[in-house]
This record gives sequence, structure tokens and C-alpha cells, in this order.
Amino acid sequence: MLKLKNDALEFIADMANGDARSALNAVELAVLTTQPTDGVININLTTAQQCMQKRALNYDKNGDNHYDTISAFIKSMRGSDPDAALHYLARMIYAGEDPKFIARRIVICASEDVGNADPHALMVAVAAAQAVEFIGLPECQLNLAQAVVYIACAPKSNASSSGIFRAMQDVQKITTSGVPIHLKDSHYPGAVNLDHGTGYKYAHDYPGNYVVQQYLPDELKGTVYYEPTENGVEKKIKESLKRLRGNS
Amino acid sequence: MLKLKNDALEFIADMANGDARSALNAVELAVLTTQPTDGVININLTTAQQCMQKRALNYDKNGDNHYDTISAFIKSMRGSDPDAALHYLARMIYAGEDPKFIARRIVICASEDVGNADPHALMVAVAAAQAVEFIGLPECQLNLAQAVVYIACAPKSNASSSGIFRAMQDVQKITTSGVPIHLKDSHYPGAVNLDHGTGYKYAHDYPGNYVVQQYLPDELKGTVYYEPTENGVEKKIKESLKRLRGNS
Amino acid sequence: MLKLKNDALEFIADMANGDARSALNAVELAVLTTQPTDGVININLTTAQQCMQKRALNYDKNGDNHYDTISAFIKSMRGSDPDAALHYLARMIYAGEDPKFIARRIVICASEDVGNADPHALMVAVAAAQAVEFIGLPECQLNLAQAVVYIACAPKSNASSSGIFRAMQDVQKITTSGVPIHLKDSHYPGAVNLDHGTGYKYAHDYPGNYVVQQYLPDELKGTVYYEPTENGVEKKIKESLKRLRGNS
Amino acid sequence: MLKLKNDALEFIADMANGDARSALNAVELAVLTTQPTDGVININLTTAQQCMQKRALNYDKNGDNHYDTISAFIKSMRGSDPDAALHYLARMIYAGEDPKFIARRIVICASEDVGNADPHALMVAVAAAQAVEFIGLPECQLNLAQAVVYIACAPKSNASSSGIFRAMQDVQKITTSGVPIHLKDSHYPGAVNLDHGTGYKYAHDYPGNYVVQQYLPDELKGTVYYEPTENGVEKKIKESLKRLRGNS
Repeated sequence: MLKLKNDALEFIADMANGDARSALNAVELAVLTTQPTDGVININLTTAQQCMQKRALNYDKNGDNHYDTISAFIKSMRGSDPDAALHYLARMIYAGEDPKFIARRIVICASEDVGNADPHALMVAVAAAQAVEFIGLPECQLNLAQAVVYIACAPKSNASSSGIFRAMQDVQKITTSGVPIHLKDSHYPGAVNLDHGTGYKYAHDYPGNYVVQQYLPDELKGTVYYEPTENGVEKKIKESLKRLRGNS
Repeated sequence: MLKLKNDALEFIADMANGDARSALNAVELAVLTTQPTDGVININLTTAQQCMQKRALNYDKNGDNHYDTISAFIKSMRGSDPDAALHYLARMIYAGEDPKFIARRIVICASEDVGNADPHALMVAVAAAQAVEFIGLPECQLNLAQAVVYIACAPKSNASSSGIFRAMQDVQKITTSGVPIHLKDSHYPGAVNLDHGTGYKYAHDYPGNYVVQQYLPDELKGTVYYEPTENGVEKKIKESLKRLRGNS
Repeated sequence: MLKLKNDALEFIADMANGDARSALNAVELAVLTTQPTDGVININLTTAQQCMQKRALNYDKNGDNHYDTISAFIKSMRGSDPDAALHYLARMIYAGEDPKFIARRIVICASEDVGNADPHALMVAVAAAQAVEFIGLPECQLNLAQAVVYIACAPKSNASSSGIFRAMQDVQKITTSGVPIHLKDSHYPGAVNLDHGTGYKYAHDYPGNYVVQQYLPDELKGTVYYEPTENGVEKKIKESLKRLRGNS
Repeated sequence: MLKLKNDALEFIADMANGDARSALNAVELAVLTTQPTDGVININLTTAQQCMQKRALNYDKNGDNHYDTISAFIKSMRGSDPDAALHYLARMIYAGEDPKFIARRIVICASEDVGNADPHALMVAVAAAQAVEFIGLPECQLNLAQAVVYIACAPKSNASSSGIFRAMQDVQKITTSGVPIHLKDSHYPGAVNLDHGTGYKYAHDYPGNYVVQQYLPDELKGTVYYEPTENGVEKKIKESLKRLRGNS
């Protein structure tokens, strides 16, 4: 909630000099840069004066554009620097970026750069994105800040994103003989005649709900797309995969 | 689901004396203050009598307004007092606050006052807010109550909210030379000629998926916006940041 | 996906004898009671025959109504009996209950009967409710089944639901002098003159982000609404509250 | 974001030879198979050439259809093979599957094949599905990849899905005397006369919030639908159920 004092209101009206857009910009900036107390943002005369003067200092003051700031924002989270990530977050909010756009970049970063080194990062990021949906600015900057800090401080892994890119490259380059016959869909008319699905082993029927079986097409047998790191939770995933494969 | 006994219905109709709004208020209050059993709210004659009489006791009975109650609600959660938080929650529901409004205040508080001292708080709060969306009153008060208690009892930190406010103040006050050149976007035409992105170190290429590199603009180098507490999960975040920085 | 064999289709068409609704009911029942394999439901002649005959066995076959089945479903989850909970879930799906209705009862039960003895229950329940939204029957019964089992097996607590009900009763019965003055909103014009907010201690300014301070109105001072159990996670909440209060 | 170089654009326009659909297909494929850097996809001449030529290599190149690929995708996740799961994910995205369709299959698999052996799998899958909703291709493939890897590497259990299927079969086959009278809804008019609800024991009134009581109908007494595995979290669920039942 916004509470705008009378003297602040008069000052903004005076300075805007009939330009409604300029007045709105000043109010918006005041809202975004004033710490709410229990959800109430109090704009007094001093704040109003600062905002009329400082609006000029936008994205372009350093010759940086929109893309440079986003680039630095993502690289700061990836680089595990919560201070820089908060700085670029503040800069984007200050410059009027749509908070939903910012939330989307955070959700992508959670999967691209943290991944299964800490699966909670994706959940925190999605929760923050939902908070943005039903709360909006200025309060939702607190949810964004929490998520940004969480991701910047989380252990990092690009193992699943590297995995999908390498898999995609093979799909483009390598012609395979296709889905192994025991994995084919066995439900359409004629599938049985074609032996589709025959020989498939249902993992839940085996001890530990696991059974050794070929899943990749013949030409890709043994290919590894997912190489878990030893960071955070992924260390346990790595060990568990190793244990499973040791069974074979 | 509501089950209204015949004698209760007649009593309310009689007392309302043709004023449909008064009758509705009584029914609403009866619903909000009667404990459902397996989702069924039973209104009998006694309840109906109480509700026709007690509706007068609303927010204003103590001269407190809407804002005072919200203020006390948030301060009780922040102050780790689940009993007071439940009291003000009950008072707001009793006075007819929109449960979505209440849910939003809880989601903000989860980030503002608990933050990464317990990242589950944000997830519990968002889950409760979603429950409010598809369940509605009166049952959704149980989801709200759980979230309020969870947050009131969680370890507290305002480290990420303080961080974004301090970062925002610096964005207003300090003119920087902008995004360091190695962090700039290197994808637009001409970026290469400008050396944008040159020298950037991709953290995932380094041991532990971390590399020392400058992320803040020159003028802010070394500035700390995020100062983790030692409460709850944030203690581990603090240690992990310390370990990373010890690498530099 | 549904695959209906030709002989099954002919049988249903024959038996329905021009009654499209009867045919649709049979197909629906076949879908709901046939285990999909990789998302494909195969209806053969035998299944079709069973479904034309068995549709008669609905909710009412035992003289139980809709409400009795829901009542038994919730009581089975609360009573930590996953087998009975699955039985009543199957009975409701079989009888054609809307899966969104079922999901809502599960989300309520997660807060009402598990609460903070296991806060993941609410998250699992909300995730299942969202799965129901974008998946629908028949597959979403697998998400519902997982959530039902999770909740039935979780440690139980009604501490936060009891808390809100007791708080609500006091709000009805007890006239208080209102929000303590130091907790009142201090942002509206004139608040300072009224000393609103004066003397408020901001918990984050104190060691451990906690400070002793009165939050309940005078008349309710010392009242306890939330009495944590020693089940599951709530045991830790209880200890942590005790530790905080030991500070006072 | 997409950045298409001039020479690439001209090449595509030339080759498409007036067929807008062919040009769009090439651009789409280029987007899907080019790794974004900080969210920017750069299409240069080489990429454009590859995409005009390779579009022919679609689902059907191996004679596999849509259903075979989905079948192999699900079986690879169930079979705990993250490499094969990523391969089929890449193949589906490459062939133009709707990412929401893919997300739904992942959410189903999380409950069907992981279940309560790791309840986080459902939460990660739902978070990824929500990311798909508000991010879209190409970036959302990173969220899908993370979820697919998470599920493929998670401990497996089909205990809750088997449970609901067996319960459903009994509902079809076995005529019961219905909901035990003490579990019946006691709220509708006349319920008390019928003794409905009489004798019900409210679990929260007993030590540990648990009490022994019959929940299944008489004919099914002692039937077990849910048989927990010893994998992952379900091992704890198994122990906790055993402990509860040991009380009886």
C-alpha cells in the first residue's frame, strides 16, 4: 500500500508541470526505492524530491543496455556472487523491468546452473515466480531477492543442461535404427504381430525395483549424456547411479 | 458444506426481519466460527442466536482499524509468537477479510522475515495461497493457520530483504562505470568488436563449478549486500559462502 | 490415451441399444478401472462386457451415500490407514466423483490432520491437486493415490487447526482492549500523535533475530492457542519454541 | 530470445523458395537445436544450412512413431537410465512435441514409478510443468531435462499405483456391506437416529494422535493395498506403519 503525503504530492504535481507521465515515473520510482514497513510505503517530501531528480539515472547512464544487465545478472547467480546478483536485480527493478520477466530468468537459471546439485532451487524459484503473479511490485521484490540469493549461494551443476544439449546434437547427427523393439509401444493394433514390447522387463518386478536392460538405440549404446558433479545433492545421485550400474 | 437446521433458519429469518443483508451476515459469521467436521458445518439454533447478536463485535469494537490488525498480525509472525499470530488471523477472518489478501501477506512475510533461514517457509506459504485459491472459506482457514504457525515458529532472517534494499539505495546514489566488460552480452551485432564478453570465465568449467571473477561494477567492488545470519539453514549458506571465498 | 478394440466397440454399441448415455457410462467405467500401460488404456471385449454389467454397482449399492464415503475417506487418512484410504478413493473415482473435489479434500486434510507434524504433506497434496488440473482422469488417479498414501502414512497433528478454532472462539467471546499500541500501524497521518507504533521492537535488530515483547492484547496475555505435538517435525518446532521462551 | 544473422535469414528465405511453412520449420529447428547463451539463441549461416537439410530426419526416419518414442521415454525414466531418458526427450523436442504434453508424462511418471520412494520427484515434476507454462520453448527444455534426470535417478516404487489399481479391482468385484457405521457422516438430518458416526474414535484424542479402529468395510477387513518398498523414503514409511500397527 502506498501512502503519499500531501506536501510530497504537491511537489510532484508542481515539478511534473502538466506532464502526467513524468509525475507517474516519479511516483513509481519512489515506490520501488522506498522500504515498506509492514507493507506500507510512505512517500514524504524528501523522497519525492530525490525521485524527480534521479529518474534520469536509468539503464543507459552507463551505456549499458537491457541485455548487458540481464547478462550480468545471470552470470552473477551462476558465479555464486549473491551481492552482485542483488545489485543487478535492483538495477533491473529500478529501470522498470517487468518482474515476471525477471522471475522467468531466475527459473531458467535454477535448472541451467544449479540443477540437481540442489533441486530445491527450482522449487524456490517457481514459488517466487508464483508470488510475483499474485503479489506484484513493490513487495514481490522481496520474494525475488530471496530466490536470487538462494540460487547464487546454492551448489552449482550444469550436468542436466549439458546432457540435453549433447543428446540434442546426437539426435541431429546420428541416424539410429530407432527405439529398441522391447521398448516399443505394444498397445496399437498389430503391435503384437510385430513383436513390439516383447521381452520388455518391468523394473518394478525386480529386487530394488531395478533391472539391467538396454534403453538407448543400438548405435548409441553406452553413450553418457548425464555426468553428475560431486556438488551438493548431485553427489548422492552420482553414488546411487554408480551403485545401480555396479549391479550390471 | 453447510447444513442449516430448520429452527436455525427460521430464527435467522425472523430476526433479520426482511433485511436480507443482516441474515446473510449472520449466516456468514456462523459459518466462519463453527468448526466443520469432515468438511460439514452444522448450524443449529444456539449458533444462530449467537451470531445474530455478536455480529456487532467487529474490527471497530476496539477502535482498531483494518491496518492496525494487519500490522499486529505481521509483527506477531515476525516476532515468533504463534499464539498472537493465530489470534490476529482469527480476528481478520472474523471481520470478513478476503483470505487471498491474508495469503499474500503471509507469502510476503515468508520472504521478508524468514527468508533463507528456512526456504521451506516460502514453499509452505505459496502452497497455502494456492489452497486458498481452489478451496476458499471456511475450510481454507486451516491451510492459512498451518502456514501462519509454520512461519511464526521458523527461524528468522531479514538478510535477503535488507540486501535488496541496500542494493537499491546504492543504485540510486552511486553512479558506476556499468557492467564489467567481460560480463556484457556478447550476442548482438558488433559485440565482438567491442570486446563484450571477452575474458568471461564460465564457472562450470572450473573445479567445484566455481571460479573467482569480478561481478560487481568497479565502483562497488567488495560491497556486501547479503549478510547471512546464523539462524536455521542460513548458517549453512554462510559457511558455504565463506568456503567459496576462502578459495580466492 | 484410450484404445478401444473393434469387438469391444461393437459389443458396447449393441448392448447400449441406442442409448448413447449408457454406452458412454460403460466406456467411462472401462477407462477408470483399467490399468493404463505407459498411459495407454486398452479396452478389450472382456472389459467391455464387465462394464456394461457392473455399472449398476454404484455408490448406492450399500445404501451409503456420497457423504458417507467422503466421511470414511477422510477418517481413514486421519486414522493412518492407507489401505482403507485407497479403498474409499477407488470407490469415489469408480462412482464418478470429480477428481478436483477429491483433491480439495486431500489438501484440507493435509493441513487439518497432518499440519506441521509434516509440512511436506501440504506440498505433496497441492502438487497432486495441480497434477489433477493439467492431467485429468484416468492418469491423475496415480497422483491422487500417491498423495493419499503419503498423508495416511504421515505423522499426525491437529495443533494448528485446533489453534485457529480456539482463537476464533475467543474472538467471539472475549472483548479486548485491542491491538497493543506498540504494534499498531504507524504509517497513517496522525499515527505518530497517537503514539502508534512507539516502543515497537524490531526482532531482526536483536541477537538470534528474536526479542521478548507482548503481541497478544492485554486481556489474552499468556493465552496459548498453538500446542505443538511431539510427532514428526512438530517435535522440533516444540523444542525451538521452548528454547525461545526460555530466553524471556 | 532469437538473433538471426542477415546471411542466415537470406539463406533460409532463398531455400524456402516461397514456402513460408518450410522456412518456419527451419527456424524452429534451428532454435530448438542451438544452445542459448544467457537466453540468447544466435542463428548463423552454418546453423541455417544444417536446419534446412536436416528437417527431413524426423520421428519417422526410423519407422518409429510418436507412441514408440513416448513409450521408450517413460520406460527409460522407470528403468533409471538418465542417458536414454535424455535421448528420447531430445528426440521428442526435436520432432516438435508440445512441451506441455511431455511435462504431463513426467508428472504421471513421478507418481507412477517413483511415488513415495521420493516424494520430491512429484514436486520437482510439477515445478518443471509450471516452468513450461510460463517459460515455453526453447529455454523450458532445461527445466524438463532437470526433472527427467531427477526422476530417472530417483529410487523407484510403484507401491501407491499398484495400491489404487488393486483397490479399484476389489471395488468392481466385491460387494461389501458398505461404510462401517462409526465412520458414516453424522451431520445430515436423521443421522443420529440411525446411529451414524456413533462410536467413532477421533485419532487426535489419543497418544501419538493414533488409535486402532476399523476403517475398511467388514468384507475387506485386513486387506492390504499399499505394500511399501524399502527404497528411499518409503523405507521410513514402512517402518512407521509397522510401528503403528505394532500398537494394535
